[in-house]
Amino acid sequence: MNDKRAPTGATREALLCAGREIFARRGYDGASIREITRRANANLGAVTYHFGGKRQLYHQVLASFAEPLGARLARAPSDPAPPLDQVSAILGEFFGALLEQKDLPALMLHELALNKPAPPPVRRTMERVFGLLLDQIRSGQEDGSIQAGPPAVLAMNVVAQPIYVALLRHRLKDVFGLDVGDPAFRSAVVTHTTAFVRRGLSAGDEA
Amino acid sequence: MNDKRAPTGATREALLCAGREIFARRGYDGASIREITRRANANLGAVTYHFGGKRQLYHQVLASFAEPLGARLARAPSDPAPPLDQVSAILGEFFGALLEQKDLPALMLHELALNKPAPPPVRRTMERVFGLLLDQIRSGQEDGSIQAGPPAVLAMNVVAQPIYVALLRHRLKDVFGLDVGDPAFRSAVVTHTTAFVRRGLSAGDEA
Repeated sequence: MNDKRAPTGATREALLCAGREIFARRGYDGASIREITRRANANLGAVTYHFGGKRQLYHQVLASFAEPLGARLARAPSDPAPPLDQVSAILGEFFGALLEQKDLPALMLHELALNKPAPPPVRRTMERVFGLLLDQIRSGQEDGSIQAGPPAVLAMNVVAQPIYVALLRHRLKDVFGLDVGDPAFRSAVVTHTTAFVRRGLSAGDEA
Repeated sequence: MNDKRAPTGATREALLCAGREIFARRGYDGASIREITRRANANLGAVTYHFGGKRQLYHQVLASFAEPLGARLARAPSDPAPPLDQVSAILGEFFGALLEQKDLPALMLHELALNKPAPPPVRRTMERVFGLLLDQIRSGQEDGSIQAGPPAVLAMNVVAQPIYVALLRHRLKDVFGLDVGDPAFRSAVVTHTTAFVRRGLSAGDEA
């Protein structure tokens, strides 16, 4: 029995890895079960057996990116810190999570281009990340450290920065030679963007 | 001769309109000449006749969005105004240009997801818009009104805002009920985001 369970888990894992790569390259509609199972060295029925079908595998692939990202951002703030420091910590982790995952930006672009309602793992993670930021923005508005204004718009202003860099990453390199894969440039982006966002949110003098 | 020229221009225009819609819905690879010509009420050879082929029609479709956008942003700054005011004007026009064109965000998402070098009309417009912002950021750094820091990163920080709102538009509505199609919310986004960006760039006290 033991020698059956191990390969079963291994096949599932191989399908998930192949799915991450193929869905990121071709999008949901362009990806075929045939290509995914061939890449995973599994038989054609393995996706149905392990996940139930293509859509369910796709949702598992999205969850495999989205859930660690949400968890990582949730761990970022250390509670006694002032709200602006907590927003900075969340932002730093957000940049890290988006820029360290090779297939994630391509998967996000294809997912958004589908123009369908957000699949459950995406929705959960968006709500979680937005919720973290809204909490900090509201408490900063209460203690006077963060500008007045609609908290949802301020949260969008923060989130816009890492999302833009992730989604436009290849184009920024191609057109302007701005390569966030280069550690020195990435570090400059994170440092200066964090300072920009702090000034943008701050009610006081962050200059 | 005159009665030939008019319908020829009309067919070309109809193909361009159909192309905008079909490429935005299905992306470059998913769009078929058959669907585009049928939608334009033209014969199957019309794309080759008027544009040379699918790729050339696609580039014309991209140019039909990108070139007016670049021209609109270039007209925004009125030269004697201070750099921060000029950046605000460019940002306002950028929001307008992206949010008023129904098919543009979907087309951008598909274009980015292709993960190919930027087609010429996209490259030209990116260079033009970035160039406008870099000029203002550098002159603001010279006159002391804008923060020190790499001008390219500050330009990315500005551009990130309207691009994020355009690309995530449907998802923000779907997940959070934040609808930039609603004039009151759109106006709040533009007003508060412009204030956020001004504080983010400003070397002085914009609070």
